Amino acid sequence: MENFKFYSPTEFVFGKETEQEVGKLLTRYNAKKVFIHYGGGSIKKSGLYESVIKALQAENIDYVELGGAKPNPVDALVYKGIELCKKEHCDFVLAVGGGSAIDSAKAIAAGALYDGDFWDFFDRKASVEKALPVATILTIPAAGSEGSSATVITKESAGLKRGMGSDLLRPKFSIINPELTMSLPIWHTAAGIVDMMSHIFERYLSKTKDVILTDRLCEATLVSIMEAAGTIMKEPNDYEARATICWAGTIAHNGSLGVGRQEDWITHGLEHELSALYDMTHGAGLAVMFPAYMQYTLEEDIERFYRLATKAFGVPENHFNKKEVALTGIERLKSFFKDIGMPTTLKDAGAKKEDIPKLLKTLEQNLGQSFGSFKTLTIKDAKKIYELAWE
Amino acid sequence: MENFKFYSPTEFVFGKETEQEVGKLLTRYNAKKVFIHYGGGSIKKSGLYESVIKALQAENIDYVELGGAKPNPVDALVYKGIELCKKEHCDFVLAVGGGSAIDSAKAIAAGALYDGDFWDFFDRKASVEKALPVATILTIPAAGSEGSSATVITKESAGLKRGMGSDLLRPKFSIINPELTMSLPIWHTAAGIVDMMSHIFERYLSKTKDVILTDRLCEATLVSIMEAAGTIMKEPNDYEARATICWAGTIAHNGSLGVGRQEDWITHGLEHELSALYDMTHGAGLAVMFPAYMQYTLEEDIERFYRLATKAFGVPENHFNKKEVALTGIERLKSFFKDIGMPTTLKDAGAKKEDIPKLLKTLEQNLGQSFGSFKTLTIKDAKKIYELAWE
Repeated sequence: MENFKFYSPTEFVFGKETEQEVGKLLTRYNAKKVFIHYGGGSIKKSGLYESVIKALQAENIDYVELGGAKPNPVDALVYKGIELCKKEHCDFVLAVGGGSAIDSAKAIAAGALYDGDFWDFFDRKASVEKALPVATILTIPAAGSEGSSATVITKESAGLKRGMGSDLLRPKFSIINPELTMSLPIWHTAAGIVDMMSHIFERYLSKTKDVILTDRLCEATLVSIMEAAGTIMKEPNDYEARATICWAGTIAHNGSLGVGRQEDWITHGLEHELSALYDMTHGAGLAVMFPAYMQYTLEEDIERFYRLATKAFGVPENHFNKKEVALTGIERLKSFFKDIGMPTTLKDAGAKKEDIPKLLKTLEQNLGQSFGSFKTLTIKDAKKIYELAWE
Repeated sequence: MENFKFYSPTEFVFGKETEQEVGKLLTRYNAKKVFIHYGGGSIKKSGLYESVIKALQAENIDYVELGGAKPNPVDALVYKGIELCKKEHCDFVLAVGGGSAIDSAKAIAAGALYDGDFWDFFDRKASVEKALPVATILTIPAAGSEGSSATVITKESAGLKRGMGSDLLRPKFSIINPELTMSLPIWHTAAGIVDMMSHIFERYLSKTKDVILTDRLCEATLVSIMEAAGTIMKEPNDYEARATICWAGTIAHNGSLGVGRQEDWITHGLEHELSALYDMTHGAGLAVMFPAYMQYTLEEDIERFYRLATKAFGVPENHFNKKEVALTGIERLKSFFKDIGMPTTLKDAGAKKEDIPKLLKTLEQNLGQSFGSFKTLTIKDAKKIYELAWE
């Protein structure tokens, strides 16, 4: 086990009707003028927007708002948000939505108290030294941004999708009402499920030995996610299954499931190029990339994949042929992704084979010649993984 | 699943030699004059005391100190600590030790900024509205106080052992170096193991249905604790097993394993009377009370005990006789407690049978006529449970 720091200071307020507490929570955190950031019109259709505004008015909290956050949130909206936030002297940023709204809200919160270009944080030219406090009302369980320090933004002009993180960007509080996720289209529900499972895989596939408690916590969460996913595909309004998915999405990314070992994140790197080039849904891209990555790195640690197959994916033990069991596990994962309606090949996902060199070029720009910790990969390896993912 | 709040803002700094970071951490949290609270002489013998003082001096942090915290920490030391803390104008409380040092440090931190008698908080006459910031260096994995809001103090003159909690008392940071726990006598290691397992049982034995993710996380932690306990009994210096026990003890009580359901805590109530009357080690008292409590409440929810037996204690499934499987589970738990050297009857633990009425009297004083949520118990039920625990 490696030394670690675990820090998850966010106050999670979870359950039915909890969005109605937002006004009181903001008051408790001394918010006077809130910058509300959200995505498309869905929160207006669902009535959530109105509930939030009412809750703020009841506490005499002033606000300005900016909608329009889209999947793979872009720099243009962040610039706009920062400008508005500075102009209006907001002292708190509230994201209402999924990972995109939360991620751009975090970038706005950091940029609002920074004199330079906010992209400096993503370029590693500056680190976040202060930021407006952030809170969230989650509507899409997926990215785990409601409990994480991270934000991922796409710089459209350069076709770059990059992430950065700071403890200052961890939400002060996050409101998670599973009922709000029931109206999500099945496609988005499924993409979110892949996303949170991937956050666990990036931590589970590690070179660090002897972190058996973390292993078991990861497996417990994976089993619960897959079980709840099966329920939701049949009964989208099942509260308990929705609640399981919501909480699993949060703990999959607040650090709980990574303690004590080196994390990898290279499959996210491989996927980021896909969503930057094609504006592909992040979860769909991960459903394509993870089975290919696992297949390619299998020999690196057959025991690890054997454990994953038997403890998380229900493949029967067979100590005489661990590699076969491990491979069956990867196949099961692929079938599961198909069963919930996700693409599992680049072809199905709408990519073009002739774009692979382009993907590799930006990958190299972002990550250099060599990357990954579970298995050290080169650009040549990345090429093979993209090809493996093709069909 | 019930609505819940999960809030664990403590920064956990975990691993080898992490105690050396205490000076830098205190500086980061703006400590200028630290009140150091610890137990007996063990931290002086082990060299930990010296390391801490060196780390403080390196950062020019002033300090005063008070040793003497004992298991089942008492009000007298808390009064002494509060007086010293006020007199010396300390602005930060650092506990170095196990649950006792941490619990009295928390009471001191709350009392230092309160004009009345600190026991008011435990009497429910006042609630904590401000407190000095607290941090910990953990040396005994057991109570989970390093990540919890709670403190339990014994008022010796009245023979009362009571708890209270406040988010203001959650440690700002907790340093956990598993190496520091290697020198713990096996008896204390074992008592700590029972304590942390009990923190999980109090949450696992619940009336709330459909919290399957939390169930699985509890089971994963219990399995890991029992496995690591077996290793430590043979190899007390096994770092990985010590690390598992340390982290399990923390997550068993920072709220992670209770989300979404009603918790019980009545077995802790039954045990508190034992440690108040006999100054019994808390973990030893719990090793006596939990099997008796489980046996007594078995019929309340056989499915729950069946799940515990099969998923956490390794009893083979048998759907034709779930009650027998459930009972076998309780027997296995009792054997495990015996195997790690704990008493499992009141007689073994050195209690006197004629004291049972005395135990019931203070229990009634503390909890009233009726208590418990998994099964609602009366004083008559409590009498039967103490009798069941006798031999």
